[in-house]
Amino acid sequence: MKTITLTMPLDMHVHLRDGEMLETVAPLTSYSFSGALVMPNLVPPVTTLEAVKSYRSRIKKAMESDDFEPYMTLFYQNYSRTFLESVQDDITAIKLYPSGVTTNSEGGVSSFDIESMRETLEAMSDLGIVLSVHGETNGFVMDREAEFMSVYEMLASNFPKLKIVMEHITTAEAVEMLDRYDNLYATITVHHLMITLDDVAGGMLRPHLFCKPIAKRPHDRAALLNVALAAHPKVMFGSDSAPHPKHTKESCGCGAGVFTAPIALQLLCEIFEAHDKLDNLQAFVSDNAQRIYGICAEYKEVVLEKRDFHVPELYGSVVPMRAGEILTWSIERVD
Amino acid sequence: MKTITLTMPLDMHVHLRDGEMLETVAPLTSYSFSGALVMPNLVPPVTTLEAVKSYRSRIKKAMESDDFEPYMTLFYQNYSRTFLESVQDDITAIKLYPSGVTTNSEGGVSSFDIESMRETLEAMSDLGIVLSVHGETNGFVMDREAEFMSVYEMLASNFPKLKIVMEHITTAEAVEMLDRYDNLYATITVHHLMITLDDVAGGMLRPHLFCKPIAKRPHDRAALLNVALAAHPKVMFGSDSAPHPKHTKESCGCGAGVFTAPIALQLLCEIFEAHDKLDNLQAFVSDNAQRIYGICAEYKEVVLEKRDFHVPELYGSVVPMRAGEILTWSIERVD
Repeated sequence: MKTITLTMPLDMHVHLRDGEMLETVAPLTSYSFSGALVMPNLVPPVTTLEAVKSYRSRIKKAMESDDFEPYMTLFYQNYSRTFLESVQDDITAIKLYPSGVTTNSEGGVSSFDIESMRETLEAMSDLGIVLSVHGETNGFVMDREAEFMSVYEMLASNFPKLKIVMEHITTAEAVEMLDRYDNLYATITVHHLMITLDDVAGGMLRPHLFCKPIAKRPHDRAALLNVALAAHPKVMFGSDSAPHPKHTKESCGCGAGVFTAPIALQLLCEIFEAHDKLDNLQAFVSDNAQRIYGICAEYKEVVLEKRDFHVPELYGSVVPMRAGEILTWSIERVD
Repeated sequence: MKTITLTMPLDMHVHLRDGEMLETVAPLTSYSFSGALVMPNLVPPVTTLEAVKSYRSRIKKAMESDDFEPYMTLFYQNYSRTFLESVQDDITAIKLYPSGVTTNSEGGVSSFDIESMRETLEAMSDLGIVLSVHGETNGFVMDREAEFMSVYEMLASNFPKLKIVMEHITTAEAVEMLDRYDNLYATITVHHLMITLDDVAGGMLRPHLFCKPIAKRPHDRAALLNVALAAHPKVMFGSDSAPHPKHTKESCGCGAGVFTAPIALQLLCEIFEAHDKLDNLQAFVSDNAQRIYGICAEYKEVVLEKRDFHVPELYGSVVPMRAGEILTWSIERVD
């Protein structure tokens, strides 16, 4: 039977939430990944060393695996150099949210005034802390990411030594930025490699495929596939797996997020195999991220084989992407 | 208190459904409108004289008002001239659905082969039967209406005496067509005067605002408002009010349709008043339609006044647009 072994797969963008939801989802990520960059948009957001340490210990407790490292992040605010020096050993990145663009982002940045951000961003640059960015404006939903490109350009050109990750990119415009600035990188989700707005709202409305940034046009998906399948050295896998309870997704006002943590590697095998690019999957799900972030990941081998996997209807209260469907790849074992 | 009297308001595009749903929604339309053009996309679709007569009598029975006329439609197929002559006194229009573009449209037209349609369209033209069209391709959801313009052009230029109504238009492209062909007309819904895709999927996902054609961009809404507020002589109000039970809207695969029948006139007052165009509302909701369709509507006067109206959470099993909210106009009485 056809198999592939992925060593030290990394999910460089995941929402593990907190409390009961954390208990549900953390073991699913820690089972099949060596590590994951954990987003800080809790309520309240993670903004202190104490909060980082405490959240990390809750994650470690919720995991069912010792061979998994949660790479911690702070929620971007203007921080002093002194504070950043004190926290640098406990975080991998600082996540910047424009205010109001997604779940629990109300405390984010409301205007990109470069001078007020300079101390923080220069200190991050000097200390090697990555700036991870949710790159959307508050404009028309299909234009938000493309409109944000000027902010990326301003950040990248003003802080040329700062590593900036364009998170969960969804547009051809963002892909084009990768080769324009040495210090711009990107994560790409598995669902944005698969769906367009047509899948969300072109037939029936599909709340479990509703996410931010919203899935875009076919030519945008093609641009994402192009760099992911080639394992472009500046792109990394980041699932943006974002669980919401079923009753809040199937309601009159459904929150944004697609839950893919337990099926991400299987889906990636399907996609890369369909394009005859399985050889590049290792770089996309691990090597690129290790190099970009300077991460030395926990050793783990995940063996997938070409065997049907029946996706459960629910994990706890959460409906996964492709619920009830059959995937063509399964995780055979984790060593 | 500020009031406005609308005489013989008409809803030139409505879905009354059948069975229990018909019992719920027909009285809501017949209360405040003199008449409505009733869509034929039942299961099975309305394609025979017997079906037209039988559906009309079910509607009359479900109504709670004698001063209301259901203007009946057939589901477009290629019909013979003989058949159309036999049915012409019982129908007002024939509704053309491209196959698969919306609820119960599977039996629609799958290719626009003008020669195969010629006998039917020429007979309709000669007999004065209006062609009412759901103008969408099967393309990318945001492009479907704009892509359909070439079909409108082909129909309008090949059958210059045939009155063609572009139903529930949503784009600047469709608005531009109005002045290009003498025989092209349009209906506009109240929700497309109010919302864009941002309202459906820009914040939380709002299934009760999900419809086909999907709401488009701000500049498209501006183009619609421009001709509606001016009561452009070729545009008419058509609510496209399309009820679905709450449990099917708030589910993992939600059907397309916004339910506005009981609040449409109140909302139109709000919109026209906000733009200081209340004087044009009579033409938009009645006069234009009477002239375009050659309809002599049942006499009815609807008096609205500027007084709060609390929109119910449900009408039967159906969640209306603006459920639970307060509108600034109420229907004071119907004479």
